[in-house]
Amino acid sequence: MEEQDEKKFVKDICRRDVDFSQWYIDVIRKAELADYAPVRGCMVIRPYGYAIWELLRDALDERIKATGHENAYFPLLIPESFLAKEAEHTEGFTPQVAWVTQGGTEVLEERLALRPTSEAIICQMYAKWIRSWRDLPVLINQWANIVRWEKVTRLFLRTTEFLWQEGHTAHRTDDEAREEALKILELYGDFMNEILAIPVYKGVKTDRERFPGALQTYTVEALMPDGRALQTGTSHNLGQHFAKVFDITYLEEDNKLHYVWQTSWGVTTRLIGALIMVHGDDAGLKLPPRVAPVQAVVVPITFEKTKEDVLAKAHALADELEVAGLRAKLDDRDEYKPGWKFNEWELRGAPLRLELGPKDVEKGVVTAVRRDTREKTAVPRDKIAAWAKDTLEAIQGDMLAAASAYLKENTKTVDNHDDFYLLFEGRPGFVRAPWCGETPCEDQIADETGATIRFIPLEPEDARGKDCAGCGGKAKVWAYFAKAY
Amino acid sequence: MEEQDEKKFVKDICRRDVDFSQWYIDVIRKAELADYAPVRGCMVIRPYGYAIWELLRDALDERIKATGHENAYFPLLIPESFLAKEAEHTEGFTPQVAWVTQGGTEVLEERLALRPTSEAIICQMYAKWIRSWRDLPVLINQWANIVRWEKVTRLFLRTTEFLWQEGHTAHRTDDEAREEALKILELYGDFMNEILAIPVYKGVKTDRERFPGALQTYTVEALMPDGRALQTGTSHNLGQHFAKVFDITYLEEDNKLHYVWQTSWGVTTRLIGALIMVHGDDAGLKLPPRVAPVQAVVVPITFEKTKEDVLAKAHALADELEVAGLRAKLDDRDEYKPGWKFNEWELRGAPLRLELGPKDVEKGVVTAVRRDTREKTAVPRDKIAAWAKDTLEAIQGDMLAAASAYLKENTKTVDNHDDFYLLFEGRPGFVRAPWCGETPCEDQIADETGATIRFIPLEPEDARGKDCAGCGGKAKVWAYFAKAY
Repeated sequence: MEEQDEKKFVKDICRRDVDFSQWYIDVIRKAELADYAPVRGCMVIRPYGYAIWELLRDALDERIKATGHENAYFPLLIPESFLAKEAEHTEGFTPQVAWVTQGGTEVLEERLALRPTSEAIICQMYAKWIRSWRDLPVLINQWANIVRWEKVTRLFLRTTEFLWQEGHTAHRTDDEAREEALKILELYGDFMNEILAIPVYKGVKTDRERFPGALQTYTVEALMPDGRALQTGTSHNLGQHFAKVFDITYLEEDNKLHYVWQTSWGVTTRLIGALIMVHGDDAGLKLPPRVAPVQAVVVPITFEKTKEDVLAKAHALADELEVAGLRAKLDDRDEYKPGWKFNEWELRGAPLRLELGPKDVEKGVVTAVRRDTREKTAVPRDKIAAWAKDTLEAIQGDMLAAASAYLKENTKTVDNHDDFYLLFEGRPGFVRAPWCGETPCEDQIADETGATIRFIPLEPEDARGKDCAGCGGKAKVWAYFAKAY
Repeated sequence: MEEQDEKKFVKDICRRDVDFSQWYIDVIRKAELADYAPVRGCMVIRPYGYAIWELLRDALDERIKATGHENAYFPLLIPESFLAKEAEHTEGFTPQVAWVTQGGTEVLEERLALRPTSEAIICQMYAKWIRSWRDLPVLINQWANIVRWEKVTRLFLRTTEFLWQEGHTAHRTDDEAREEALKILELYGDFMNEILAIPVYKGVKTDRERFPGALQTYTVEALMPDGRALQTGTSHNLGQHFAKVFDITYLEEDNKLHYVWQTSWGVTTRLIGALIMVHGDDAGLKLPPRVAPVQAVVVPITFEKTKEDVLAKAHALADELEVAGLRAKLDDRDEYKPGWKFNEWELRGAPLRLELGPKDVEKGVVTAVRRDTREKTAVPRDKIAAWAKDTLEAIQGDMLAAASAYLKENTKTVDNHDDFYLLFEGRPGFVRAPWCGETPCEDQIADETGATIRFIPLEPEDARGKDCAGCGGKAKVWAYFAKAY
């Protein structure tokens, strides 16, 4: 009976091995995480998807604040002349900018950009606010919506409008800025590990992949089950590039004006896409407990005679779990059968399902089912809250372990051109290979294989003595290549 | 010495009785709540201002969720054709819309509005999502940025871009929708009372002041110290107006298609403006403890000999208060003198200042000063956490009481044309007067006095037998008039 229901319910979700992209979209729409909006490339984040965003946002926000940063809010609209001040930045973003040209009935004298990122407006304000060394460091973050006119979009991963946080800091020294950028990289990595159960590589981008206007871009990179890499966050050491363009100076203790040193860094709603892909299976979403809006769903199994009693006990169970600090939910909808609910909550990725029927009540147990392993346990009723807490912790750890094993298995080392090219006829995951360090070689690899350098490790690995996997010239460092989203 | 510092420090804040508007702007800029952005009418919400916003947002969000609502996120960009669907709505908002006409290098075929409010996009999605009575009610809220091209702007009170929450609900019956709109009005009122310490009147708007497209607009109205009213939140019963235009139907249990009944409701960053005005004084901001980013600031009074000891004890004091659950801050900046800090934290409105000097240490006390009354108390060191908690509660209550007394004193009743017009030669606050119920009369009063009807009480007060304070005709109800922001 349960088997049958399941087949019926999930028939509309494409199998992952048949068409991964279709599976991804099916899960998002069936689990009601998001929907397409009428404007091309825009999405609506539905309540269940937004609840996940709130959980991950709050967890990250706490870490950002704990490291001394404050939140603020800068305007959506940026005058074109500001964006144009920094040449590299302009070139990088202008093709993606949406322009406001009319306000009410008035045609604007200067076009206004919807922020594609906020360096231009924030630097303008910093130039005004920062006066003396006493004002430094400035450690500001904002949570905001961003608009980039994308040609090819995909729900959560690349949308015309998305939500993100962007940190913008100003410092007295080069070292301090570099340390800040690296501290945030570390913070992002820990957050993804501990909260999202997503293992990531940390490294630095090549010139080709650098943020326009940055000295160095640090990156966290995850691996999706289709073998493609996903950049899940970046942290930029901006040097004095923007400071010089926007004239952000301060009076040092030496009584001279100096330019500040800056960083910027961000993660986006794309993280929800990573969560779906990294953890999901053919039954749908599988959420790590720390970002699951419903950590334990209580499903009563009711029969005519005992219905009232079982419902009351299911209610008490859900209440007890909530009091114990879990995000618990009683699914007491009358119009759906238990089997249907089981499938729906598997699709929605609730880490624990707690079934309570007359037999469970009789035996003094709750039948608990883990979403990740589908393991079924009869848990004594009086121990359920403690058991659920421990098990959610175990699930969180097991999900990270499973994803870490996958990442490790799908990171391969090759040291010659032929093996490298052969691997990229498929989607091998991350490929560690010797590289000459030259952008034209990197471009050629990208053209021929579709793979790009995702990062160079923070402690570069010396590859001298090897031949570059791309051009065959003298290699300098080991680089990590992948096809990427 | 302290006196002198104060004079020096606050010399740049205009006195309230000299120029209230200037005082308002001075406080915002000196307390670093917000700053002007380069685009006309836009503002930057600086960290201290944004911390207030976060506190009030989280407190309100908790109440919105506790009443069964979920958050979601809908797109910023709305196609012109959607906005144009509802005639009254269009007419009301089009003069204020900012238009995106270009995306990247592409000129758009259809202009896209930056949302001036989200009914048009949300209704479009509801039409798609809502199928059966099982899907109702839909209780969704969103926190978002809004753009309205305003001609005259003022920080927080009216800005081209602002932040808000907007609830959008859909129901099976007329009664349910009306109840929802009124429940939210109640929720807003309680929130403003209990969290912001701002007393408000609740009522219903006249046709003239109704939200474009609504059946009824309920409003909460506060009174500012300059005698002008400020609308601090609105809740609209939309009836089936939008449902018919956007074709939002559902299959009832009677197996027929019906239109849903809707509401929408919102409050904005304007609430920060209300906080500043209602509670502030010539020394600056005065924050109710529940939304004060710093509830208790610890200022060490140091002298060369005892500096180390006092600083260590001040640190321990701040830590102890934080552990006790207060938002405490140690101001240990070396470059500023205590008197300067006293004034700065008065300007920034911290409800409690705790001074700790060598004499306090000797006596085993902390010298506590209340921001609202400036009352100074020597509190035994071992009782300070409990005392601070109790006193913050007392301050919260006292601030509400003071504001309530002001509101009461400045609500006057008149029952004839001459007294009414005489009162409005000044700024009398709220004036309760008999009114005929006719829009042309209301228009004429507005033209002649600058006062508008802020609300009619929820339980209308019968004024038959009286003459209308405007036109002298037969009155129907008592209306509350004021000059307003």
